[in-house]
Amino acid sequence: MSTAPSPAPSSRAGSGPAARTLADADTPFAVVDVHRARRNIARLRERADRLGVALRPHVKTAKSPDAALLHDGSPGPVTVSTLAEAEAFADAGHSDLTYAVGIEPHKLPRVIALARRGVTLRLLLDSTEQATFVAAAAREAGIALPTQIEIDCDGHRGGLEPDASGLTGIGRILHDAGCLDGVLTHAGESYFCRTAEEQREAARNERDAAVTAAGRLRAAGLPVATVSVGSTPTAHAADDLTGITELRAGNYVFFDLVMAGLGVCDLADLALSVVVTVIGHRPEYGWIVTDGGWMAMSRDRGTAVQAQDQGYGLVTDLSGALIPDLVMTAASQEHGTLTARNGAVLPELPIGTRLRVLPNHACATAAQHHGYHVIDGSRGTTAAPAVEAYWPRVTGW
Amino acid sequence: MSTAPSPAPSSRAGSGPAARTLADADTPFAVVDVHRARRNIARLRERADRLGVALRPHVKTAKSPDAALLHDGSPGPVTVSTLAEAEAFADAGHSDLTYAVGIEPHKLPRVIALARRGVTLRLLLDSTEQATFVAAAAREAGIALPTQIEIDCDGHRGGLEPDASGLTGIGRILHDAGCLDGVLTHAGESYFCRTAEEQREAARNERDAAVTAAGRLRAAGLPVATVSVGSTPTAHAADDLTGITELRAGNYVFFDLVMAGLGVCDLADLALSVVVTVIGHRPEYGWIVTDGGWMAMSRDRGTAVQAQDQGYGLVTDLSGALIPDLVMTAASQEHGTLTARNGAVLPELPIGTRLRVLPNHACATAAQHHGYHVIDGSRGTTAAPAVEAYWPRVTGW
Repeated sequence: MSTAPSPAPSSRAGSGPAARTLADADTPFAVVDVHRARRNIARLRERADRLGVALRPHVKTAKSPDAALLHDGSPGPVTVSTLAEAEAFADAGHSDLTYAVGIEPHKLPRVIALARRGVTLRLLLDSTEQATFVAAAAREAGIALPTQIEIDCDGHRGGLEPDASGLTGIGRILHDAGCLDGVLTHAGESYFCRTAEEQREAARNERDAAVTAAGRLRAAGLPVATVSVGSTPTAHAADDLTGITELRAGNYVFFDLVMAGLGVCDLADLALSVVVTVIGHRPEYGWIVTDGGWMAMSRDRGTAVQAQDQGYGLVTDLSGALIPDLVMTAASQEHGTLTARNGAVLPELPIGTRLRVLPNHACATAAQHHGYHVIDGSRGTTAAPAVEAYWPRVTGW
Repeated sequence: MSTAPSPAPSSRAGSGPAARTLADADTPFAVVDVHRARRNIARLRERADRLGVALRPHVKTAKSPDAALLHDGSPGPVTVSTLAEAEAFADAGHSDLTYAVGIEPHKLPRVIALARRGVTLRLLLDSTEQATFVAAAAREAGIALPTQIEIDCDGHRGGLEPDASGLTGIGRILHDAGCLDGVLTHAGESYFCRTAEEQREAARNERDAAVTAAGRLRAAGLPVATVSVGSTPTAHAADDLTGITELRAGNYVFFDLVMAGLGVCDLADLALSVVVTVIGHRPEYGWIVTDGGWMAMSRDRGTAVQAQDQGYGLVTDLSGALIPDLVMTAASQEHGTLTARNGAVLPELPIGTRLRVLPNHACATAAQHHGYHVIDGSRGTTAAPAVEAYWPRVTGW
């Protein structure tokens, strides 16, 4: 028995090497339509340009340097959710990263190691306690650790409220150590907005929280460079980002059924799907059984709280054409159950038939896979789309 | 861009190499208490011996050859849920495997490759269509592909009902190709039994379904070697397995909050947990925020349908001592929210404090990690248990 982590005995990504088409690789496996991803990116890029803010993609959804390159063709500023992502994107040439999860002391050695490589890794915190140990670590290491103060705009997760009494004190501790970079907020509640107007209101509220906090710091004589906001719904709803310097979002590259349910995108924008194979039929129950269970889709049931519950996902044929009213309604570890709804007739799909399932939540479904088989939907519809590339994912922490 | 899958840019398992104690590795990461796992295995082994059946562990939960070795110290018969598991366990010396997911034609080349290595890989199916292509593949390859017919005992998933008219015809097709091995059923509905008596009844029903189907095949002159039943709840509830040759179960090695809620085990039996670190406080909401979100715990909320909903998990200190009434009640990708229930006071846990979270569903939580930091609870309670080993997991398909 060894204490050193070693590679898993097998890490197949549902694929033999060099799958030519989606009919080749062993199911289940994840697919990305690069044409849709490019279109989704262009849409948000155009919005950010119009609103006069920088776009800092959150790579936590795709976790793929290849996917991030779709933005500009070269490694740009990104947001990361783990230090493993930070290290992998630094390895891929990205030099401006924001680690958007509150920092704790044990992670500082890896943070400092990245800083010493010349990578700008912006940290996040919301307490005097954290500011104190970040400032001490920066002084001890003799380097700046650019840090943002997390602002809570909607009671969703971490952060200080914009009018919190402790804000300027934290800003001062960071500034005195050369570490104050700015403020960051995330409208987590926007995922539960039901109308476009609610989303616009969430975007205004997110902006106001960040601008108010930045204003208080500046009024105290503390320079604020970065004023960062973002969530995929608010990024697509914002009508005025005056005072904001950058927009973060992640899900928009792939989109998913939750985003479609919020009206942020159409089903035709969903760039991520999972290829599964029919392995059985239970006509007495009205079921088609597939080899894609929750291990392939995740347990995420994000649409369960929306007006239209989409089960574990909607179903298309292998070409990507939606099969109306066919829904993945149940999952065990390696089995998916498809049923017809709205009185539709269950289609006849023999054993061995390949289908694609559009997920509730792209971040969670993508995380079940080691990588993506990449197709290009702009090449026209074919029964078995050609695989253009395989993109590995960053995993672990 | 290459079409060949390559290793992910980073696959850290939440760990630097050679963590000495649970205080060392970077959080979040998965921990297995080998003492509890051994005790859980001994309990089911003793039951199987008493009931006069072989035990064929389902390795889909731990997906670790190291964990499987806890059974007998040498590679024994196992059940697998993916061909990646089959290949990895064959590599680790296991030569008798049951692949307990319905077979489809595309997977046969890997099945035949395993058979040609001398591995007995038992297949599963429930249709004439599947029996026909398996028989044809066996004849073409000139080898036997031992195959079990899936029997449905409770309307949970796949399988033929024990009295289905097609059963003997399928048996005949398999037998004529030298491929008939037996029958297999799984009481999937037992996870929803509310009392011990309901679980015993589910176990009797599971046994009766398998024995009835085997009897029908034998009455038609078809030899049946294997009569296989199992689920963790029924395996622990069965009082008489007359006519059954083997018991399958997987979850019992680790157990989890769902099994504790069913009364199949105690909280003190749970062998899997996830180490997380406190990264923030929201006293105004009564929240402690950690760096363990759904990426570390999975989205599984199995206890939501039980009498006591345990949120995303119960919380212990790093030594494993339960912190009464502290529950992980919310999760985003890399954030967990802990709250107190039953009027308990929220404990004071400074930023950097390490905790362990006991999961709803061990299979789903383990799947979020590349491996396990292994501790041995029999060595007594210490604030930071020593890491005895690192066990990698099989991933992918």
